[in-house]
Formats: sequence, C-alpha cells, structure tokens
Amino acid sequence: MNISEEKTMFILDQKDMPTHWYNILPDLPEPLPPLVHPVTKQPCPLDMPLPPPLFPDAINKQEFSRERWIEIPDEVQSIYKTWRPTALHRARRLEKALDTPAKIFFKYEGTSQAGSHKPNTAVAQAYYAKKEGFKRLATETGAGQWGSALSMAGALFGLEVKVYMVRVSYNQKPYRRILMETWGAKCVPSPSPDTEIGKKLLAELPNHPGSLGIAISEACEDAFAHDDTKYSIGSVVNHVLLHQTVIGLETKKVITEQADTYPDIIVGCVGGGSNFAGMYLPFVVDKIKGTKKDLRIINVEPTSCPTITKGIYAWDYGDVAGLAPIVMMYTLGHTFIPSSIHAGGLRYHGMAPIICHLHRLGFVEAMAVPQLATFAAGVQFARTEGIISAPETNHAIRVTIDEALKCKETGKAKTILLAHSGHGHFDLASYDAYLANKLEDYDYPAEKVKEALAHLPEVPKF
Amino acid sequence: MNISEEKTMFILDQKDMPTHWYNILPDLPEPLPPLVHPVTKQPCPLDMPLPPPLFPDAINKQEFSRERWIEIPDEVQSIYKTWRPTALHRARRLEKALDTPAKIFFKYEGTSQAGSHKPNTAVAQAYYAKKEGFKRLATETGAGQWGSALSMAGALFGLEVKVYMVRVSYNQKPYRRILMETWGAKCVPSPSPDTEIGKKLLAELPNHPGSLGIAISEACEDAFAHDDTKYSIGSVVNHVLLHQTVIGLETKKVITEQADTYPDIIVGCVGGGSNFAGMYLPFVVDKIKGTKKDLRIINVEPTSCPTITKGIYAWDYGDVAGLAPIVMMYTLGHTFIPSSIHAGGLRYHGMAPIICHLHRLGFVEAMAVPQLATFAAGVQFARTEGIISAPETNHAIRVTIDEALKCKETGKAKTILLAHSGHGHFDLASYDAYLANKLEDYDYPAEKVKEALAHLPEVPKF
Repeated sequence: MNISEEKTMFILDQKDMPTHWYNILPDLPEPLPPLVHPVTKQPCPLDMPLPPPLFPDAINKQEFSRERWIEIPDEVQSIYKTWRPTALHRARRLEKALDTPAKIFFKYEGTSQAGSHKPNTAVAQAYYAKKEGFKRLATETGAGQWGSALSMAGALFGLEVKVYMVRVSYNQKPYRRILMETWGAKCVPSPSPDTEIGKKLLAELPNHPGSLGIAISEACEDAFAHDDTKYSIGSVVNHVLLHQTVIGLETKKVITEQADTYPDIIVGCVGGGSNFAGMYLPFVVDKIKGTKKDLRIINVEPTSCPTITKGIYAWDYGDVAGLAPIVMMYTLGHTFIPSSIHAGGLRYHGMAPIICHLHRLGFVEAMAVPQLATFAAGVQFARTEGIISAPETNHAIRVTIDEALKCKETGKAKTILLAHSGHGHFDLASYDAYLANKLEDYDYPAEKVKEALAHLPEVPKF
Repeated sequence: MNISEEKTMFILDQKDMPTHWYNILPDLPEPLPPLVHPVTKQPCPLDMPLPPPLFPDAINKQEFSRERWIEIPDEVQSIYKTWRPTALHRARRLEKALDTPAKIFFKYEGTSQAGSHKPNTAVAQAYYAKKEGFKRLATETGAGQWGSALSMAGALFGLEVKVYMVRVSYNQKPYRRILMETWGAKCVPSPSPDTEIGKKLLAELPNHPGSLGIAISEACEDAFAHDDTKYSIGSVVNHVLLHQTVIGLETKKVITEQADTYPDIIVGCVGGGSNFAGMYLPFVVDKIKGTKKDLRIINVEPTSCPTITKGIYAWDYGDVAGLAPIVMMYTLGHTFIPSSIHAGGLRYHGMAPIICHLHRLGFVEAMAVPQLATFAAGVQFARTEGIISAPETNHAIRVTIDEALKCKETGKAKTILLAHSGHGHFDLASYDAYLANKLEDYDYPAEKVKEALAHLPEVPKF
C-alpha cells in the first residue's frame, strides 16, 4: 500500500455526534464524597451541592445528578458544531521517528476557536446562565486558556464577561488579553480595584503579582455582588468534567468504528483534570464493568506540582481564600504555591474529586514528569507531526513517547491514545526559553508542601 | 427541525481527497504570456521557464506544464493527511446575525499546523528539493506566514531552512520567529550580514528596516551561492497556485456532494493570489466552459495596495532588486512600497499572472476595501462564528458580509463561498490597535504609484 492510502485522520459525521453528556456518578462502584460548605463545614445536600447563588440552578443540579446521560441542550449542540467533531489523528510520522510498533492516536482539541478543550464547558455554562436570565459571567484565569474560552462563549450568547487574570500572566501574555477583548470581554489584572478584596490587597502592595486563588476570590465576590451575574469555573468540579465527556464520547465512537481498535493505554495531562477526565470517563466505565480490565489510564502531572503522586487524600478548599466548597481530593494544601513552570494550567494544588476517587479505587494511575523532558517531547512532536502543542499537553506527549519506546523494547504493538488538549500558539515564549537553554527543572518541593498541609480545614465527621 | 440537526461542518473522508493538482493552463481560452528572463529580457523557454538554478527541476517543469492533472506525490499526499481535508463550514450564526437569506459557506485553512493555506505548497516544494538531493531551502518572509509554513515543511523532510525575515516584522512579531525556530529553522532579520547585498545595505544603514524585495534578493543570493540549496517562494508563480488547488478541489467535491449546492459568488483576499486562486481555479473552469456563466468570483485587495483595481497590466519584475523573472501582470510598480497596513500578506506590488490573465479575459472581478472596515468585519465574524481571522482574511470577510447584506435587500438566497485563508493568532497586536481606535485607513497613493510605474523594465517585443 502507498503511504498516501494510510488513513491518518478519523472524524465523525456531525449527525453521529453525541447528543448527551456522560455522567459517571451512577456507574461508580462507591459513591463520591459530597462537597462540604466552606463556612458551615457541613456536607452540602446532593440536590444543591454548590453553595448558591454562585452558579445557575441547572449547573447545581448537574453537579451530583444520578442520571447517566444528560441531554446536551439543542443550542449548545448547535454551537459545538461550529468546531466539533474534532479529529482523531494517527501519529504515523511520530511512530516512524520512534521506530516503534505502537499505534499512537491523538484526539486534537486545538482546532476549537479558543485553541483548547475549554469551550466544551464554557459554551454550556454560558448557555445555562443566559437561559436563566443572567446578563454577566465572572471568572478567573491564570495562563488564559479558560478566560479566552469563556469570553468566546459569552460573545456567542450576548453575555458580558468579566475575567480576573492573575497580574503576572496579564503582563506576560498580552495576546491572551487581546483575544478576550476581541470577543468583547473585559479582562483586568488581579488583584484589581474592582472588588473589596482586590482593593485591600492593592492597598498593601500596589503592584501585587496576584495568584489564581486571589483571582477566584475576586470573581466570586463579583458574582455575589451583582444580581445579574453568575460565576463560572473551568475545571475540577463534576459538571465541568461532565461537559468535557464530549471528547471521550466522540473518541470512543470514532476509534472503534473507523480505526477498528480500542486503546491499551490512554494518556493525558491533569491540572484540575477536566480535559483528561472528559476523554477517559467514557472508557474507564469499561474497566469498572470488567470488560476492559487491562486498560491503563495515565494521569500526567508536573514533578513541581505532583498532586496525585505526592499529595495526600484529604478535605481541602478548592481556592486559597476559602470561598469555594471543601472537597475530598488529593491535595498539596490550598496555600501551596507551585513553582513558575510554563504549563500554567497544571499549577493547581488539588485535583478533580472524580479523578481522585477513581485513583483511590485503582482504576487510573498517575505519573509525574519534569519540565525539560516535556519540552523535548513537544519539540519532537512539532518536528514530526507539525503541531506546536501547549506546554500542558507536552506532559502527556512525554509519557506517550516513553510508552511507545517501551513497546519498541518489548515488541508489543500497543494502541496508545493521547488526549491532546490544545495548541501552544500563545505559549511560544516558553519554547523560546527552552530552545535558548533558559528553562530549568524543579524538584518536588517537600518542605513547602509540608507547610501547606498544616493548614487544611478541619471538617467534622458526618 | 432542531437547530442542532442543522449541519454546519462538511468534511471529506480522507479516501476521497484529491490525488492530483489541477492545472488551469490547458483550459485557458488564450495562452498565458511567458516569463521573461530578468537579465536577457528574452522570453524563457516554456520547458524551463524559471531561470535555473533557483528551483528544483520538477518545479521548473510544473510552471508551464500542459498536463491538466498533475499527480500529487505519494509522500506529499501522506503529509497533507496530517491536517487535510480541511472543513467546509456553514456560517449559520453569521447568517442569523446579518438576518440574510444568503447561505454563507467558508473553507477554513486555519487548522493547518502553521495556521494558514501556505503549507499546501511548502510541503510540495520541500518534497521536490529533498527528492533531488538538496539539503537546504532559502526563502524570504514578510509577516511570517510563509516562513512558518516552509519551516514546518523543512522539519518534516529533514531539510535545513533559512528564512530572511523583513527586519521590521522580525522585531514586531517575535512569536513568528520562535515558531520557525521550534520547527528547527534559522530565521534572521533582513538585511542580514549573511549575504553580500545584506552586508552592503547594513553598511549604508546599520539598522535598515528591510523590505520584502530585499529579503527575496538575499534568499536568491543564498540559493545561488550554495550548491546544496534551492530557493522557495510562497505565492504569485504558477506552480504555487497549482499546489494550492487542493483547496478548491476539496471544496468543489464537498459543497456539491455533501451540501448539495454550488456557489453563486466566491470571495477571497489576494496578495500574491495563491490562496484564492487555489480555491477558485477548479470552479472558474466551469465559467470558462460556459456551464456556470453567472458565477461571480471576487478578488479582494486593500485600497492601500489595489493592484488589480488600480494597477496597469504590464511587464514588471516580481521583486524590487530585479533578480526574479519579469512577468506580465497588473502592477503598481516593483519599486512601490505599500502603506503599513496590518494585512502584511496583501502588501505586494504585483499579482499572480494567472489571476491577472483571468481578469483581463473577464472571468473574475476585483474589489478594494479599506482597513478599518475589514477589522469591523473580522470582529463581527469572531463574535458570531468564534474564529479570530488573519487581517488578510478579514478583507474577504468584509465583502462576504456586504454581499450577504445585498441578499437581504433583494431577498435572494444566494450561496456565497468564502475562502478563509487562516487564523489571526499571531496578529493580535493589530486587533488591539483596532479596538483601541489606533488604526487608520489609507487612501489610494496615486502619486507614489505614478512614480513607481515610471520604473518598469523595457521588454523588447517578441
């Protein structure tokens, strides 16, 4: 066969796209621990698990829903179709460069208008806010992927969007701000004079660099202060993972029906965990049911912020200021500030409770990789497959390559599925630093974590 | 029907992709004028129309080939399949915002790894250079789209790539340089100390801002000076348009077979013209043959560089220094320096000879639009369809919207096909300036053009 006859891109017809999100909760062998109210320290009722009035009602109901399949609203499906389905690629050129018998597939979310998987939930969250009559959304952003996606979703629904962007990133990444503004959003450096907490911090330190925890607090305060405003979040919580299952549902259909295979190993990067869980929840259920016992699912995190591999499983706040619900998860402590690696999306002290629960139950595994090795993998990927990937994604590419090289040693032709979360067009400064040998690796910050873990909230037994 | 059942993305299966490029030359009712040698001023022989040793032999042969269908090499097809076919989108949300009965379709080339249509020819040119045993490619780039694409193609074939980038752009757009370097290319500001002409200009003016004409001269000199090196060009000449016909061939198949329609109007932007000609050559042949007499094809250019609408049809050099072949085309004069609009890819004094010829014969039309109106269109597109487009593409979006609004007046449900050449992720500074009201329009520079047209080469009658 000529190489031009080898198929390298597999894509569903739009009529075969998922019409429902997949909710893993009813299929878990043990129930997920509830959320705990940050003030009362009591478990939230399962029909209203997120403290009102932060989120739209529909979102609150999805958080602990027992429905296995939740219908994707008509208008959300319609907007998904401006960029979905995304393609499943066979990385044949990378396979050849590695001289591996492994088959490497990757589902590429970088073709969304915002360049990542984030719009899958941004569009849904904007839809519910609009439907319930709200006019504004407030959110935080670190590296800018999430703020960009919500800005785009706001534009499509005619909602005003206010993004509190960590000041350091705001100054370092002006293109991210311009993206948001082109979609019509307002983006301010956090801490900002627009909130009480922001004013207080600026009074203490006029050029305060900010942090994700502070930005979350500002966005929450904004939503509390305005009756027409809801808060949006881009990862960690159950409803975000739910919306992201479109990735895995599309992939499962296309890899089995068009590529005639089923993965032996699924690899993805995890910060809050929504992108990768969105990929693997529709697959892990086969392992839970016992039909795919040998399936390996590898959550990849940075060695500088190794939440699953080094954290403890405990009750902790989702944010630094303690405004968000307390969740049972692997955590490095909500006051832990990770090193300044370029994969900003992976700098989070906690992890999606669903992922932590599945890890505790033995259905998924985790691995930590150092920064320089991830960029080496990203450059190899760019020079074989062409795509310049986000620094976050490079973590998953590193492990994908390592697993493919193991196949070369063993001679086994495993099918490896990579969850490719997005492009790196706005992260090129990090590639520049890498190519100029100006990046460094960070060891596991054992002392800082020990200090942070001394500040976990005390939750009474219930 | 629910809106979610409306199809908005149409995409070929990879097995239905074109296996041959379409060559319009045998289908032209009058032959294209030959190229003229820049030194001898004599017409080049049709079997060796580009002065050797600039290009690989296979490229020279394609330039005036009489074969209607030219096979795409197996390896080039295989690489196309890392991102092709690209999707044909129905811009339903834009249609609704405009309240027009028109059906707006756009073929989106922004999902290529380099973000535009440019890799369609870059991959082919790199393939032929590699096949003929060369080790290096030299080229120029202005805004950076072309240099990026050739850098990627070089990486995929293991070729060294040297890009001479106009110094002003090199300083303004560092991300473009980093992109090229991530793919392994070497990118230097032009004029550079690496060539004789560069040294001479730097001696006169150490911080010389450069121009596309100078960068072309440096790249040509580089190719002349190194036996292992060929020169690559990203637009204008026949073989580049030939390679770009994959866009139109895919579109024609998918719009007729999946969307069950045929365009009434095709709109695209033209700088050198390769992207848009690549779209419409497979369609214009139907007009030449008389089966689609009413088809309108609109070449859109900027009012500040209105080559077709205001230029004269004459023999002129393709570059400023007079190293490239002399061609018969619409031109504003090879010494004309256009205003600094942000659509850098449209700042060219001439136009692809095939496009000029088709315009002279009455098969295609042209329109010029001012900068501010193009950004207004681009922002409207971003806030309805989500995509942030290249400033060049915004020119075509402007005319697409205007034609759709005419349909609203007349009540006619025309099918408008937009050639969308790429995203604007590396052009956000221009959106920032637009949103801050810092952009301006430029009038037609009549005096500057008059001056430039006084310097056309004299070509003896033959």
